[in-house]
Amino acid sequence: MNSNRLEAFSDGVLAIIITIMVLELKVPHGTDLASLTPVLPVFLSYILSFIYVGIYWNNHHHMMHAVEKVSGGILWANLHLLFWLSLIPFVTGWVGENHFAELPMALYGVVLLMAAIAYFILQNRILALQGKDSLLAKALGKDIKGKASPIIYIVAIIASFYSPWTAGALYILVALIWLIPDKRIEIIFRENE
Amino acid sequence: MNSNRLEAFSDGVLAIIITIMVLELKVPHGTDLASLTPVLPVFLSYILSFIYVGIYWNNHHHMMHAVEKVSGGILWANLHLLFWLSLIPFVTGWVGENHFAELPMALYGVVLLMAAIAYFILQNRILALQGKDSLLAKALGKDIKGKASPIIYIVAIIASFYSPWTAGALYILVALIWLIPDKRIEIIFRENE
Amino acid sequence: MNSNRLEAFSDGVLAIIITIMVLELKVPHGTDLASLTPVLPVFLSYILSFIYVGIYWNNHHHMMHAVEKVSGGILWANLHLLFWLSLIPFVTGWVGENHFAELPMALYGVVLLMAAIAYFILQNRILALQGKDSLLAKALGKDIKGKASPIIYIVAIIASFYSPWTAGALYILVALIWLIPDKRIEIIFRENE
Amino acid sequence: MNSNRLEAFSDGVLAIIITIMVLELKVPHGTDLASLTPVLPVFLSYILSFIYVGIYWNNHHHMMHAVEKVSGGILWANLHLLFWLSLIPFVTGWVGENHFAELPMALYGVVLLMAAIAYFILQNRILALQGKDSLLAKALGKDIKGKASPIIYIVAIIASFYSPWTAGALYILVALIWLIPDKRIEIIFRENE
Repeated sequence: MNSNRLEAFSDGVLAIIITIMVLELKVPHGTDLASLTPVLPVFLSYILSFIYVGIYWNNHHHMMHAVEKVSGGILWANLHLLFWLSLIPFVTGWVGENHFAELPMALYGVVLLMAAIAYFILQNRILALQGKDSLLAKALGKDIKGKASPIIYIVAIIASFYSPWTAGALYILVALIWLIPDKRIEIIFRENE
Repeated sequence: MNSNRLEAFSDGVLAIIITIMVLELKVPHGTDLASLTPVLPVFLSYILSFIYVGIYWNNHHHMMHAVEKVSGGILWANLHLLFWLSLIPFVTGWVGENHFAELPMALYGVVLLMAAIAYFILQNRILALQGKDSLLAKALGKDIKGKASPIIYIVAIIASFYSPWTAGALYILVALIWLIPDKRIEIIFRENE
Repeated sequence: MNSNRLEAFSDGVLAIIITIMVLELKVPHGTDLASLTPVLPVFLSYILSFIYVGIYWNNHHHMMHAVEKVSGGILWANLHLLFWLSLIPFVTGWVGENHFAELPMALYGVVLLMAAIAYFILQNRILALQGKDSLLAKALGKDIKGKASPIIYIVAIIASFYSPWTAGALYILVALIWLIPDKRIEIIFRENE
Repeated sequence: MNSNRLEAFSDGVLAIIITIMVLELKVPHGTDLASLTPVLPVFLSYILSFIYVGIYWNNHHHMMHAVEKVSGGILWANLHLLFWLSLIPFVTGWVGENHFAELPMALYGVVLLMAAIAYFILQNRILALQGKDSLLAKALGKDIKGKASPIIYIVAIIASFYSPWTAGALYILVALIWLIPDKRIEIIFRENE
């Protein structure tokens, strides 16, 4: 079995997740600027979630490129990842409609954490099939980003109950870590080691 | 006519079905744990339905892999399957919002039963084209899982009216039967015969 | 430019149209049979619309198979067809929620009529590129189905205002004409000529 | 990395955007012509937005056809474009439900403007990789349409506050500029220079 249909299905689900979130932006009834105010926090959380799903699609795209054969385990590990990502529209809406309150912010982090763990499991499944000397293993290296992200999520989840804005800043931080092109980061990390 | 576009269309529909269910998870208005309570049963039914659609996608993926030519009959048998699967978000929402009440649980089983029958028809259409000695015919073997599932569904539908939780347990059982990798099951069945 | 991406995009839109209709099946609040009653007419109109979109996908699939080059005109003729098909969920919901009332039934027919005309335009665009001796031209023959359908739709639209059920029967009739495999119909028509 | 999966993902997102808009056409409760009245402006804005997304898909289709390698920058420039396009259903609903009021009309233009800028960035990223002598660079020529559109959008945004209908006319004008086949326009522009 090849990976084409797995990619096509994942693309479809990710495309729907990224687009369905916009439905949480409820069309306001008024026509003045004030009527847009309740939409603003939902819009801000939409931007962050859009970037997160974009990052996942991007990384998924790269990882699957290295995969030729798909085992049953990879298939379910992939569905497991899609499951947690499919909850992003729900927590995005909850966070946005409640102006970044404590519990919604924490649950947002929990979903991101579970998605990161699911991605880690999928990655390990693929690496187990490909071996330590594979191109993917080399490309990942020490996978510092992959290991740092869950730790930051856990800190952010705890922080949510004391300072939701700190949690928000940490979620933005993780997104930035992944957005900045790899090579430069890798050089920075190498120099710091 | 080849099977590529049939697979692509089915992938699209299955991807939308699996993602649209999350829209039944209505964003709660409060921000405390109590406000999440009404979402919990919908979430549980979402998990089960997600796994079911995942199983169907997985099996569909394998079966279509063996298909080269697509007849008009296969095309409509496939649409018939997608029709019943498209009703899963509806019954999932009904079951979840009513805390696993009798009739919703029974209807959930009816939709699963009809999908299983539709899958069986599709499979037979494909086997009729491919012959008894085809790889697909051999891979299916006695197709014990495919035959046991509808029977368990029927038992569960009847059980719904007496004990909805028993019905729920049976739906989970069928999902587990399909989730556990085939080979081991086949060995178990062979040893028991 | 080849036709692959046109097919992929059309598949995506058709897959979404066919699945989005299920969102019109509002999850009822009660848990008894009576609470399903208002869903029933929506369900019936869903079945008919599902079959119609299925027929369009099926025919589109066959027609595009014969297309190698895609011109700008074909691209927009295709989008024009998708536009009218995208209105099917709206009229399906309107018909279903109003128990097949006069005006909704008529509008349902108008959308089907416009889709049929759009399909006819797309088909002619493709035939113009391919020539009278092309495989597609031969496969279509006199295209009796394609010419009869709009006429039946017009009759049904007018009938809607006097007897909505007659209109419904005519919509079902057209669906049946297309569902019955081509060859047999062609033989029947040949014998009758 | 090749451009196939980028195209497939973009196709998916665009297909969902174009279809999700139809959900803003709320099924009316009455069955007479009057009950359709509130739907009419939403329908008109739906037509315009459908054409806009169609134009973007069309142009995206052509541009990506010229792309063989996809860099990280192109990937994110593409997601940036999809982000702004994903807001079209929201502004379409807002414009339609408020009968083309001032602020909604202006915001509609802002989203179109941002999408045009995002498209321009994506195009430049691709041209930077391909060089000035590439087929794409030649096909674009002076890219008068691409440069005129943002200017017209800005005029329309300002006009919205004085005369929303003028803004609407300008949005229709831009759509027409892109709809009319390229070659003829180019000839006209050449003759006028």
